[in-house]
Amino acid sequence: MPVYLQISNGLVQQIKAGVLASGSRLPGTRAIADTFQVHRKTAVAAYDELLNQGWIEVRPSQGTYVSESLPTITPQKIGKELSGLKAQKAGFNFHQKPNLHRILPLIPDGLTLDEGIPDVRIAPVDDLIRHYKSIIARTYNRRHLSYGSVYGDDLLRETLADFLQETRGMNVQKENVMIIRGSQMGMFLSSQLLFKNGEMAVVGETNYVAANLTMKEAGASIKTIPVDEKGIDTQSLARLCEKEKVRAVFVTSHHHHPTTVTLSAERRLELLQLAEKYGFAILEDDYDYDFHYRNAPLLPLASADRSGQVIYMGAICKIVAPAYRVGYLVAPKDFIDEVGHLRRIIDRQGDAILERSVALMIRQGDYQRHTKKALKVYRERRDHFCQLLATELGDFVQFKVPEGGLAVWVELREDMSWLDIAKACKERGLLIPNYNTYNYNNTAKNGIRMGFASINFEEQIRIVSVLKEVMTNHLDA
Amino acid sequence: MPVYLQISNGLVQQIKAGVLASGSRLPGTRAIADTFQVHRKTAVAAYDELLNQGWIEVRPSQGTYVSESLPTITPQKIGKELSGLKAQKAGFNFHQKPNLHRILPLIPDGLTLDEGIPDVRIAPVDDLIRHYKSIIARTYNRRHLSYGSVYGDDLLRETLADFLQETRGMNVQKENVMIIRGSQMGMFLSSQLLFKNGEMAVVGETNYVAANLTMKEAGASIKTIPVDEKGIDTQSLARLCEKEKVRAVFVTSHHHHPTTVTLSAERRLELLQLAEKYGFAILEDDYDYDFHYRNAPLLPLASADRSGQVIYMGAICKIVAPAYRVGYLVAPKDFIDEVGHLRRIIDRQGDAILERSVALMIRQGDYQRHTKKALKVYRERRDHFCQLLATELGDFVQFKVPEGGLAVWVELREDMSWLDIAKACKERGLLIPNYNTYNYNNTAKNGIRMGFASINFEEQIRIVSVLKEVMTNHLDA
Repeated sequence: MPVYLQISNGLVQQIKAGVLASGSRLPGTRAIADTFQVHRKTAVAAYDELLNQGWIEVRPSQGTYVSESLPTITPQKIGKELSGLKAQKAGFNFHQKPNLHRILPLIPDGLTLDEGIPDVRIAPVDDLIRHYKSIIARTYNRRHLSYGSVYGDDLLRETLADFLQETRGMNVQKENVMIIRGSQMGMFLSSQLLFKNGEMAVVGETNYVAANLTMKEAGASIKTIPVDEKGIDTQSLARLCEKEKVRAVFVTSHHHHPTTVTLSAERRLELLQLAEKYGFAILEDDYDYDFHYRNAPLLPLASADRSGQVIYMGAICKIVAPAYRVGYLVAPKDFIDEVGHLRRIIDRQGDAILERSVALMIRQGDYQRHTKKALKVYRERRDHFCQLLATELGDFVQFKVPEGGLAVWVELREDMSWLDIAKACKERGLLIPNYNTYNYNNTAKNGIRMGFASINFEEQIRIVSVLKEVMTNHLDA
Repeated sequence: MPVYLQISNGLVQQIKAGVLASGSRLPGTRAIADTFQVHRKTAVAAYDELLNQGWIEVRPSQGTYVSESLPTITPQKIGKELSGLKAQKAGFNFHQKPNLHRILPLIPDGLTLDEGIPDVRIAPVDDLIRHYKSIIARTYNRRHLSYGSVYGDDLLRETLADFLQETRGMNVQKENVMIIRGSQMGMFLSSQLLFKNGEMAVVGETNYVAANLTMKEAGASIKTIPVDEKGIDTQSLARLCEKEKVRAVFVTSHHHHPTTVTLSAERRLELLQLAEKYGFAILEDDYDYDFHYRNAPLLPLASADRSGQVIYMGAICKIVAPAYRVGYLVAPKDFIDEVGHLRRIIDRQGDAILERSVALMIRQGDYQRHTKKALKVYRERRDHFCQLLATELGDFVQFKVPEGGLAVWVELREDMSWLDIAKACKERGLLIPNYNTYNYNNTAKNGIRMGFASINFEEQIRIVSVLKEVMTNHLDA
């Protein structure tokens, strides 16, 4: 703590204790400087602090006095007995959300084999803070500290419109882009506008469970179609559309969640044609487009959307760090406009300074440079991890090396259970993903996602050796 | 941009342009240093950058080469024609929210007489950034950059439990406190759990319009009871409860929004007794408790809640700066637990680093010191502004000097209209609050809120002189 604050805090203590009485005269700053053996400037700063807080007052050509009216607060109790809110249990009724009670982790589990998250140890935090400070330092930008637009920082909206054009071939304007707090928020906002009274959402079997729950919570009924090595089966979807009214199809085209397969180009076009023909929305969650290890990824559905069918979501936080909740929702203007009205009553707006910082990171190339570095690290980690799986766990598991993303989909042999393995791992201090997450309708293959990106070679070796030990014991028993 | 990045970016350009071909040998760092007239270390840093991004590779005891496999991305188009998402209009149906289409501003209006917001020019940004940096700088705290708890940063939850005990007499534990993004989010989350199919919310007439809209959007029907100089009329509420099932009562006890009257101690106790008797929830939005200019404010309802009736909301952002979306929701544990499940599918979590920074600001006293300073500034501005209103606009308006908060409730004489005045002000470049905000059911008195806190003396004089000119012209016409 700065010296001037130590002095001013000490004087506040004395005023509060009554040692220095209200209205009494204080020594000058020169005397204070002598007493505390500090520079005169420090004494002046201490007095300024006390003055600003209202503890002392200056009477012109008389001197400095302890305030007549001290800035202390003595709240009045409103009842005789002051018992306060102790209750563990509400004294009123409320509607539970049993739909949401399963599966989704609310609090992180500590050190773990995750489902595919970035390594925060390589996050470009220095770049971010540099921009953050530069924005605040400019006086005229203090307006960023006040209320902002529900649609997000203007510069980031413009920057992302250009960025999505360059990297994803999407022909969008600023008006099509809304800044949100990660793609999950895009799912929540969109679902609230799309579904009511059991209107139908179609997803692959199995699917990203948070998407299912979010749509269901909004009022959707969920129908599933098969997923094979080319992604969701558009022929099944076509047959379904002939019979029933589909409101929206959810798809993670770049890598199907959880199994990581890529939706083929033919199926992308089929899906767009079906959407146009039947008037349904495509919810394209492109959470990991930036992570591809081949040099020729397919462009997203949104790049070929001619009739305004696609609601596209992506995340910045996956590249920068998950704690920085910044993502984007891209859709026809009328839909974006409407979403803003809903967002207004949820959290008002995002963090405008963080959003502007991200805009500067992209405009000055920091974001792109970091992406390349992260890709290189993650590709090496993917190769190392898959090599380990093959050599150490080859008797137990099957997998394909994923072409992108941060996780590999690992299927266990039929006579073993991931739930048993997870339990045994936990006893050895290793947490692995919850199999139930992939088993929403009890139809999952015997697979879980294993994140390779957040763990370095040494950590990978430790984790796989625990898995091997557990699996071997399990087979012997 | 640092020199090493200028060099590495230049080399990337040459590689991309084919001047430096894939697989070709590069000069050593010493030669690069000579060529660009920089220190050898700078050249090494430039090469490290290129290596990390994957543009060059080092072959042991041979030298440095342009990578055989360059980190360039050439996405594949998925259709012949690449038209992209141009549409202004969605190709699918969605449900509009006409309820939300009125009144609430989505984008700030520029320089204005606001409804009562803090002055961001005095925001304690330096303190905040100091803590922010210190948190990130500690290696072990990098975990704050990854996914965190839906309930918010643990240290802030603990700190606020203590802080609310000290400042508001509330007997709460960490488990009762959830960190949210401003009190609006508390209203959204709580309303979603409280109301369904027209269950009844009771509010004062008139009331904070965003609260009405948020509860209505969740499914509530809104009933109003009168507000007088002691706040909402609890006798009317008692009569209502005898006849109908009340699910929740919304109250801004510290200063009724918009009229700024304080709910009396007697009525607070009556409201609590009614809540206990009839089993309804009290939504207590205490958005400006910290801003009181008398030394003995009444403690909130939550301080005397013995049976778990109160859902209490407050905002940190009002003290620090509106752009830092941090607030708290305090309620019985079972309710907080349930809210977490809903929050999980909205935005996953708050900004963990910002939350931890705020915790440190409170623990080290920065927050409290700033509050005292801000209070002193705002009290002087209140007095100056009310003096101006009295001397300059005394013929046109009536008001009471508010005991706290950031705004004064100003009623216009009956033969004039705020809507007309606003229009004329706008022509003179002054934006004033929208009268319709206070006229939700066409029952408002002829009043608007005028924020005095965000404008200094000089700005106050300019604004009041425009108002005087407009009002005088209006009367002459």
